[in-house]
Amino acid sequence: MSDSVVTELQAALGPRLDFDEAALEACRTDRSGMYATGRPLVIVRAESIADVQATLRIAHAHGTPVVTRGAGSGLAGAAIAGDGEIVLSTERMRKIHEISVDNQLCVVEPGILNGELNAELAKHGLWWAPDPASKAISSVGGNIAMNAGGLLCTKYGVTREAVLALKVVLADGELLEVGHRTVKGVTGYDLCALMIGSEGTLGVIVEATLQLRPLVTGVVPTIGCYFPSIADAAACSAEITRRGLQPAIMELLDRHMLRAIANYTGIDFASRGEAYLLIQTDGHAALDEAESIAALARERGADVEVTTDPEAAASLVDVRRNGFLAVEAMGQAMLVEDVAVPRDRMVEMFDALDDIAERYGLFIATPSHAGDGNLHPTIVFEGSLDDVPEHVWQAASEMFTKALELGGTLSGEHGIGLLKRRWLGEELGMRQYELQQQIKRLFDPKDILNPGKVFAPEQ
Amino acid sequence: MSDSVVTELQAALGPRLDFDEAALEACRTDRSGMYATGRPLVIVRAESIADVQATLRIAHAHGTPVVTRGAGSGLAGAAIAGDGEIVLSTERMRKIHEISVDNQLCVVEPGILNGELNAELAKHGLWWAPDPASKAISSVGGNIAMNAGGLLCTKYGVTREAVLALKVVLADGELLEVGHRTVKGVTGYDLCALMIGSEGTLGVIVEATLQLRPLVTGVVPTIGCYFPSIADAAACSAEITRRGLQPAIMELLDRHMLRAIANYTGIDFASRGEAYLLIQTDGHAALDEAESIAALARERGADVEVTTDPEAAASLVDVRRNGFLAVEAMGQAMLVEDVAVPRDRMVEMFDALDDIAERYGLFIATPSHAGDGNLHPTIVFEGSLDDVPEHVWQAASEMFTKALELGGTLSGEHGIGLLKRRWLGEELGMRQYELQQQIKRLFDPKDILNPGKVFAPEQ
Repeated sequence: MSDSVVTELQAALGPRLDFDEAALEACRTDRSGMYATGRPLVIVRAESIADVQATLRIAHAHGTPVVTRGAGSGLAGAAIAGDGEIVLSTERMRKIHEISVDNQLCVVEPGILNGELNAELAKHGLWWAPDPASKAISSVGGNIAMNAGGLLCTKYGVTREAVLALKVVLADGELLEVGHRTVKGVTGYDLCALMIGSEGTLGVIVEATLQLRPLVTGVVPTIGCYFPSIADAAACSAEITRRGLQPAIMELLDRHMLRAIANYTGIDFASRGEAYLLIQTDGHAALDEAESIAALARERGADVEVTTDPEAAASLVDVRRNGFLAVEAMGQAMLVEDVAVPRDRMVEMFDALDDIAERYGLFIATPSHAGDGNLHPTIVFEGSLDDVPEHVWQAASEMFTKALELGGTLSGEHGIGLLKRRWLGEELGMRQYELQQQIKRLFDPKDILNPGKVFAPEQ
Repeated sequence: MSDSVVTELQAALGPRLDFDEAALEACRTDRSGMYATGRPLVIVRAESIADVQATLRIAHAHGTPVVTRGAGSGLAGAAIAGDGEIVLSTERMRKIHEISVDNQLCVVEPGILNGELNAELAKHGLWWAPDPASKAISSVGGNIAMNAGGLLCTKYGVTREAVLALKVVLADGELLEVGHRTVKGVTGYDLCALMIGSEGTLGVIVEATLQLRPLVTGVVPTIGCYFPSIADAAACSAEITRRGLQPAIMELLDRHMLRAIANYTGIDFASRGEAYLLIQTDGHAALDEAESIAALARERGADVEVTTDPEAAASLVDVRRNGFLAVEAMGQAMLVEDVAVPRDRMVEMFDALDDIAERYGLFIATPSHAGDGNLHPTIVFEGSLDDVPEHVWQAASEMFTKALELGGTLSGEHGIGLLKRRWLGEELGMRQYELQQQIKRLFDPKDILNPGKVFAPEQ
């Protein structure tokens, strides 16, 4: 069965196939650290829409699973492939077909990296706003498949708000065009939005028309604030929002993260406070806003630095940037979580994390996008992501339950993939879970598109 | 059959039922001027989610169609009800359950008017951005069901970008919660986006969690520019966008509209130019942006007025506001169209409209949201919307075909309803049309939710 599908792929797409052992092995995992069971059959390195269509047609005829994979930077195991699966790589599809300054849009292939695209757009005074921390290594197609968030979402929106239209190859190989080239368009159901965040389970994104913004120019002041407690820092960030100030970036690190960073860098950040709030403002009001924010933070007891000097700014930003490296350097496995809660419940979530860490005897360090209540509690444990100890899953499970209790969600921006599928039903409720599965079956009746991701296989 | 469903509704919802003849008659039409065939059975004036659920449960058991209706301000006949149909009115469901300044969100019932809600939000320094021209008379639920646009979309987005979560009653009466209370959330498919713009065909929106923005304060300069030609005006508006300037409002009226307004108001606008570009800027850079825009318009040959005086501004804005009244006052029926094209194709669309008007001997006046390429060609004809002469439909049909040819859409913001269902397939293509219908059947297997709207009944 798998032999004959490979034979057909070879006949149709010979030079695009890759059987290299190291390459196949690499597709078994992503940045989550999870591994698929077994090894995929082959990698199809698609170079065109026609290649994707041919792959799907053959896979569909044989009922062979296809895992679409961009840059492999996912954090939920959504694009990892194992036994009996075809990897459909979009890495070679990275052309920019069009940049229209007049329409503030571009048309691109899915494999182009976010950072690569933005470097090109900047030459035209344009910018694609989705800004995941992974932008240097994550693809536009992956950003769309996951509805990526990032640091700038409160001010500039998530990926969904920056995609106008998509070309998608369906499970049977037919090409579908959804969305509009115009800012507005209301012709029936929004299948473009349905595709965004569908994690490769409804179709393969082969082209995207992206909505761009004028590049934000001018000074970007950076404000670093050390607060006596996480509650003080969170209260200050809430007050910033309440006053209608609109930081571009507003990141909050807890004391565990600060200690890990202090250990890693040798610089004693932790002694300056229990929580670090990092803010950048941009646009026409950047300087005014920065001044108001700094004054507010000082009033509320913070040790504050403000700078417009790029080097000094970099050192303030580096504190945040070193977070994961510092935790990684602790030399054990880590599970990066991704809950989001309404902004005014963040302190409760931080408290719950402390409580969970204590009860389970775990080290949990938490950076967060304070502007939108998105926390990344990072559990450090002995073992590997392939074999997460049960008490770590239990701790994660308690986290999710708490986030839901606070009116939040178990995934703000990393998606479900394999990592969180067992909790999806808890958040969605039975009826919505069923409706989502029915939509999946409607688009993919043979269940060949990334099967087992998002929805656990039925028993 | 219809007797027994009414009997059951009476038993369950007695005081909520309305059989008033004038009220039933009013539900046969909306602001499009179309009329449903026959008269609906009854109006259920729901006051709670439970009322909506009870109505749907009974209707579902009997297979009786339900037309959900907000304020009846639609422009595509999506909420008009006729023979054998139940009108489910949300007009009495207009509570604001919550306004959260910290989370910049509010939770409301669907019947509240957009303007009514925004008046309340303003007291808290907040603002819900969707800004259809109908905001004083259109409901939030209707805005969501249609994914309403308006004047401010280029800068502030369409309705979809301003809705976080929805409670929806499904065809069988079950309550579904979709979306998130947080800015970010990626748990499976985006059913919240799927509901937005679904025109009452997938479920009944009974509660909405809306994403708010800080109220934009400060001076709002208004710029009125009369250009020698529509091409000059469109080129100027394109140049404004190209330079990264971000007007809040950018409206463009063609010479036919200007003449109608001149006739209506007695003020000779038309002699000042062939096209009127109306711009407002807001936010921190409002004055700078207004200055740059005025200079640019003058360079390009426009007769320009700029003002920050509210009264003078009102008179500039009134030119636009009087557009539909002026056309309406021509005393015949009018068909308000709603095509959108990429911004750089607007001139071609205006040219095509002139050509169509000439060939069909019709008066077509066109106001447009130039910032997002959304035109409202308004065809004046003798007759009524109930019985549109075939040559008018043909002219409209040519318009849609042209808009599609230019990479546009046949509905920017008014929706499909009854008015445009016959052209929907042309835009979507057969496969997408089928997929949309399959989604409809999945949510509403008995086809009781607004049947015949969006999708024409199968022959």
